[in-house]
Amino acid sequence: MKKVFDEVHGYITLNDLETKIVDSPIFQRLRRIKQTSLAYLVYPGAMHTRFSHSLGSFHLSQKIGEKLRQNGILTDEELSVLRISSLLHDIGQFPFSHAIEPLYLQYNISNKVLRSEIIRNDAELEEIFEEYSVNTDKILEIYNGENTFSSIIDSDVDVDRMDYLIRDSRHTGVQLGNLDLDRLIDTISYGEDNNILVLEKGLYSLENFYISRLHMYQAVYYHKTILGYELYLRNIYKQIVDICCSELFDEKYIKKSVNDGSIAYWDDEWIFSKLYEVLSDYNISDNLKMQVKNFLNRNGPKVVFEEVSFDKLTTPLEELVGKLERYGIPREAIFPFEEKIKIIDKNKIKVFSKGKYKMLKDFSNTLLNVVPEYINISRIYVDYKFVNRARDLLS
Amino acid sequence: MKKVFDEVHGYITLNDLETKIVDSPIFQRLRRIKQTSLAYLVYPGAMHTRFSHSLGSFHLSQKIGEKLRQNGILTDEELSVLRISSLLHDIGQFPFSHAIEPLYLQYNISNKVLRSEIIRNDAELEEIFEEYSVNTDKILEIYNGENTFSSIIDSDVDVDRMDYLIRDSRHTGVQLGNLDLDRLIDTISYGEDNNILVLEKGLYSLENFYISRLHMYQAVYYHKTILGYELYLRNIYKQIVDICCSELFDEKYIKKSVNDGSIAYWDDEWIFSKLYEVLSDYNISDNLKMQVKNFLNRNGPKVVFEEVSFDKLTTPLEELVGKLERYGIPREAIFPFEEKIKIIDKNKIKVFSKGKYKMLKDFSNTLLNVVPEYINISRIYVDYKFVNRARDLLS
Amino acid sequence: MKKVFDEVHGYITLNDLETKIVDSPIFQRLRRIKQTSLAYLVYPGAMHTRFSHSLGSFHLSQKIGEKLRQNGILTDEELSVLRISSLLHDIGQFPFSHAIEPLYLQYNISNKVLRSEIIRNDAELEEIFEEYSVNTDKILEIYNGENTFSSIIDSDVDVDRMDYLIRDSRHTGVQLGNLDLDRLIDTISYGEDNNILVLEKGLYSLENFYISRLHMYQAVYYHKTILGYELYLRNIYKQIVDICCSELFDEKYIKKSVNDGSIAYWDDEWIFSKLYEVLSDYNISDNLKMQVKNFLNRNGPKVVFEEVSFDKLTTPLEELVGKLERYGIPREAIFPFEEKIKIIDKNKIKVFSKGKYKMLKDFSNTLLNVVPEYINISRIYVDYKFVNRARDLLS
Amino acid sequence: MKKVFDEVHGYITLNDLETKIVDSPIFQRLRRIKQTSLAYLVYPGAMHTRFSHSLGSFHLSQKIGEKLRQNGILTDEELSVLRISSLLHDIGQFPFSHAIEPLYLQYNISNKVLRSEIIRNDAELEEIFEEYSVNTDKILEIYNGENTFSSIIDSDVDVDRMDYLIRDSRHTGVQLGNLDLDRLIDTISYGEDNNILVLEKGLYSLENFYISRLHMYQAVYYHKTILGYELYLRNIYKQIVDICCSELFDEKYIKKSVNDGSIAYWDDEWIFSKLYEVLSDYNISDNLKMQVKNFLNRNGPKVVFEEVSFDKLTTPLEELVGKLERYGIPREAIFPFEEKIKIIDKNKIKVFSKGKYKMLKDFSNTLLNVVPEYINISRIYVDYKFVNRARDLLS
Repeated sequence: MKKVFDEVHGYITLNDLETKIVDSPIFQRLRRIKQTSLAYLVYPGAMHTRFSHSLGSFHLSQKIGEKLRQNGILTDEELSVLRISSLLHDIGQFPFSHAIEPLYLQYNISNKVLRSEIIRNDAELEEIFEEYSVNTDKILEIYNGENTFSSIIDSDVDVDRMDYLIRDSRHTGVQLGNLDLDRLIDTISYGEDNNILVLEKGLYSLENFYISRLHMYQAVYYHKTILGYELYLRNIYKQIVDICCSELFDEKYIKKSVNDGSIAYWDDEWIFSKLYEVLSDYNISDNLKMQVKNFLNRNGPKVVFEEVSFDKLTTPLEELVGKLERYGIPREAIFPFEEKIKIIDKNKIKVFSKGKYKMLKDFSNTLLNVVPEYINISRIYVDYKFVNRARDLLS
Repeated sequence: MKKVFDEVHGYITLNDLETKIVDSPIFQRLRRIKQTSLAYLVYPGAMHTRFSHSLGSFHLSQKIGEKLRQNGILTDEELSVLRISSLLHDIGQFPFSHAIEPLYLQYNISNKVLRSEIIRNDAELEEIFEEYSVNTDKILEIYNGENTFSSIIDSDVDVDRMDYLIRDSRHTGVQLGNLDLDRLIDTISYGEDNNILVLEKGLYSLENFYISRLHMYQAVYYHKTILGYELYLRNIYKQIVDICCSELFDEKYIKKSVNDGSIAYWDDEWIFSKLYEVLSDYNISDNLKMQVKNFLNRNGPKVVFEEVSFDKLTTPLEELVGKLERYGIPREAIFPFEEKIKIIDKNKIKVFSKGKYKMLKDFSNTLLNVVPEYINISRIYVDYKFVNRARDLLS
Repeated sequence: MKKVFDEVHGYITLNDLETKIVDSPIFQRLRRIKQTSLAYLVYPGAMHTRFSHSLGSFHLSQKIGEKLRQNGILTDEELSVLRISSLLHDIGQFPFSHAIEPLYLQYNISNKVLRSEIIRNDAELEEIFEEYSVNTDKILEIYNGENTFSSIIDSDVDVDRMDYLIRDSRHTGVQLGNLDLDRLIDTISYGEDNNILVLEKGLYSLENFYISRLHMYQAVYYHKTILGYELYLRNIYKQIVDICCSELFDEKYIKKSVNDGSIAYWDDEWIFSKLYEVLSDYNISDNLKMQVKNFLNRNGPKVVFEEVSFDKLTTPLEELVGKLERYGIPREAIFPFEEKIKIIDKNKIKVFSKGKYKMLKDFSNTLLNVVPEYINISRIYVDYKFVNRARDLLS
Repeated sequence: MKKVFDEVHGYITLNDLETKIVDSPIFQRLRRIKQTSLAYLVYPGAMHTRFSHSLGSFHLSQKIGEKLRQNGILTDEELSVLRISSLLHDIGQFPFSHAIEPLYLQYNISNKVLRSEIIRNDAELEEIFEEYSVNTDKILEIYNGENTFSSIIDSDVDVDRMDYLIRDSRHTGVQLGNLDLDRLIDTISYGEDNNILVLEKGLYSLENFYISRLHMYQAVYYHKTILGYELYLRNIYKQIVDICCSELFDEKYIKKSVNDGSIAYWDDEWIFSKLYEVLSDYNISDNLKMQVKNFLNRNGPKVVFEEVSFDKLTTPLEELVGKLERYGIPREAIFPFEEKIKIIDKNKIKVFSKGKYKMLKDFSNTLLNVVPEYINISRIYVDYKFVNRARDLLS
């Protein structure tokens, strides 16, 4: 048994099996992946890691699981699997997470794909699982949504989101994300078809959860400046990998590196080491060097156009990009972005009131019914040298 | 100069004038009026007082005022008046505040009326004001909304609400009321006609402010159990005053007690002292004694009917009360309650974006546009002895 | 089962038996006794009650007890008794606690005596204990130090002190009292003869506990101004009781009021009600009325002499008092105070290091060995009218 | 003007000059140096950076400076220099700070030497200083202790220590380091000869400051495991630099890299990039590769002997090391450590009491007089492979 102090939840207790998992190289790697990617460039305190977040999610799954166990809904064994699943839910995360992952989706590699690979093929984990007779199929069932308890790990209101909302809020100082987790955990449960079940008296906590999430999207995860740096780093990464090691875009190579354990050193630090190599390598173009320096010295791209709405967007982005190009701004200095972000699926929420579950829409006194279902964001960033020109063109 | 430690804001600094005001009997009285009336019967931590809240509001008005002063909007003298106005804004509060005040509205005595009386006629305050050449007319102008800065003391987003939301949240543990006050203060201002002006980047804080307020209404200020005790105490108070000292319902007598200073001892403790007298007085009816004991021992009335909605209410309360009476529940054991509570006046909010103020409705990405304008609450409480019967009748 | 939110520990869970105890009049009385007596006159936030503190101590005893239970040291039944004992440990507290209790010690009535009386004879508690087959002898054994687990409720490092240090710190803002309770609970245990057993790695937490306690003595419990008001109120109380109801100094009468349940209304509010009666009673001397007003308006006595030392005191207090009297300050306007306060009993602490328990003095790297064993405080207060004169005389 | 949110102090405001300094590459480098070096290997939350700490120290120097300015002790201009001095006080810090710096002391390069070099010779800073007419001599005077206000930046109780104690406490969860900074700042001042002047009523805060510092030494800065990793990384760094770039141990080269700006990329990330290069370089010995992997996977050296005392140490370390060697443990696998750490210089503290400054020793009621002056720590670590053997040999 081991106790680790966590700055959000206090002491977190791991049993021997879990301690060994945490001590393995593939898990230690999570110490070297920041939870909120490049958010620290705007919020200096946001240096926290996937390692801390994984422990935090684990801790919450234990809290929820224990409640279910005491109510006879979960067996001791199922709780044990649930704990490991939450502990390892981010084990396949990419260096700088969302900043890099999109480059890999075209090659059919997501962090979930990597996670399955690691669970199945990491040598040290395999040894540990064998020693403690852990059935990895059970873990994968949870991840694949085949298990009744999958929603605890992956749904609108799961331990992942619970932990990161509160943890990211703490480190960024964006106080919008404050949550009464104890009350939330106390009043929600999970039903079939990924439904969120909530006691009527828990509606406030749930409202706050969804609203906090919306606010964190706006203030952190899709923050103007932060997102610009993510697009910028993505572009730099692509150029570097094309030069140094294009095999990193090969699905087979990635899987091989899971097998031989070398993936344990593919993390934020690895990308930084590549940036530093670029700076000292005579063969690299001045242009790329300049981009790396801009990144390190915080001279990233800037927004020249933005539309954010709960309704449909009205401006066709390509047209604007075209215009900028036509007037002489090089395409590689333009970074367009567009995303439709789901906030809430109201059909998946059932409220327990006066002895039975009802549809959310039958309640006329909850903000959940007025929270928007989506938020749409579109933006154009340009390299800082072209900002004034682009703003003139688009005004 | 004096420093007082406040558990919400840290050290609060008072100048000599303000220290003398705080040391006067009429202000010390606020130590003996709890901020949230009977909320402590549900949230044991809610023992905080109007004294603390007054200091807190004062502190916030200084923060906002200082910002305006630095921007040349407020003179040193106006800031000084603003500080005193906020310090004294609750000086006319009733014992147990909202629990008792409604009894007096029919006699044209509100806490605002009392406040003016006290500012004008309290002997010790008068002396202090004279010593420091304070013009009380200026203070009253602020209270009466005649001053440009009145909104800081009394508007949808004023120092009063800012302080009590965060203070009450802290003491009740209702974490819904968390606010980023620093950011809020940094991004709002006040315009003519009591308008709230907000920078676009401050919209999240303002959203959170209104949503927190709505949540605190639901979870504390109109909490089922708490409100029941308020109605119960109101009823007991009325009976006691009718017996012991009906002059307390006489406007002239109240004003006289301001003049002679005896109002400084009319507070929560005074009401408690009356409750204790009732218990030891042989002339008082057993029925009233029993009510007092029920109150002290936390056997208050219980809700047997409730409707809460952002829309119009659908059930006529009188009909239900009539039914209960017809079936034998004594009218004095029935406590009906109905209120339409304003949440937000969207026409009063202007958003500063790209160089000019726009109407709130022109923004498609803020929750303020979906927050309901009102919440309607109706309830029937009955004495705990009749609960089962009443529930049967109304089911 | 019931959950109560506590502003220090979060949700506290009570079982049915404990809920009934909390709902009884004698326990509800604790809502009307402030935890830190008159400290709120200096720290406005210190309005918290013995009710909250009792729930908090209960919560901590459950935490410690559960740890011992899991280690097989405590049975389920013993844990149940421990919980009730902690819940009721303050049930015999006096109105305004330490301010009033000293008046009763000469009549052999302490809060511990009252506690035993109440546990044995309160009618409602008796009924509850019977319903749930609670053996009150077991509870009294714990209180009397006859039980192995008595130290959890009453020793240098017990749940009472753990809760109040952290709770009082929170409400007064005296940040000296911050404690890592989780770590403390994790590393200490209790041995025979009321010994505190501590793991070597828990020494820092224990150091901090004792130092915090010392600081809280200096900054709150024996605070210059606060203590003055306690002496002042004690004096007023004595005068009032002599006039209105001298039977309150009769041991038999007090015990009778336990039996008939009327003690449930003997609390801070009761004393306030007496103060308010004094103000409106024509038969009371102007002098006493003035004292009551001084108390209510915060014009208490002031310190004119003080000596505080970890060593022996050097000034004989009586001599100074005599001098003040000789020069015309009336004896009833002089309030001398002298106390030797134990900080730590170093012989009672054993440290577990490298497989065995050792004496504290064998450790050359812990502050516990340099913390003073006692702090001595002596002071003379005089009525505020005589302050200047007294200071001249004693300078 | 710019506002940055800090997770410890809230919003920190920078003027235009300071914003430009913060935006320069040499300052951005501080984002890539962790404040507590390798403490995150034990406390996962300790990922905070010298960047945050520099802003925090700056903020505190502004608070203290503003107090002095209002009292007429400091001019506007002096305050401006003080602010910049605190902002830049860590600008010369080494990668992984204390882990690496000792390697450079033999070459006469400390972080203070580097700081002076940077202040004098960094091209971008120079440009900014020129634009705003900043006199760098004034800054260097402060650093060199020649200025009356030097103690604010560098003394036993300076803004550096104030900030890091509270910041490190927050991130490690070591709650021993809680401080009432507001009170401390309010009650201390600085005299000639680096004396700390304190009001008598501020003694508690100062006691807590020194005790917290002692506790943080024990629990974090000289933590058994953390220190082991620092010694281990230091050793790895030395080997790598000897191979890749021994010019990094050349004083002239280091100064050149200040001049050409390349030092802006010499940080924690740079060291990590070297570690990653080692892993992929065929020419590097397996032994060094293994050490790097041990470091990354958290298989560091372990303590086999330890002595910690407020008194003199009794065991000669070399003898033990000799014994280990004689019995076959290779010298390079043994990491001895010995340090005498100053806790407090009691002669430098003067207490203001009853109108004059007195020596600390004249006060018989403060813990400062019993706090030890030094703490001595000696330890032997060995590579984890030799732990059992070494423990046997030394037991």
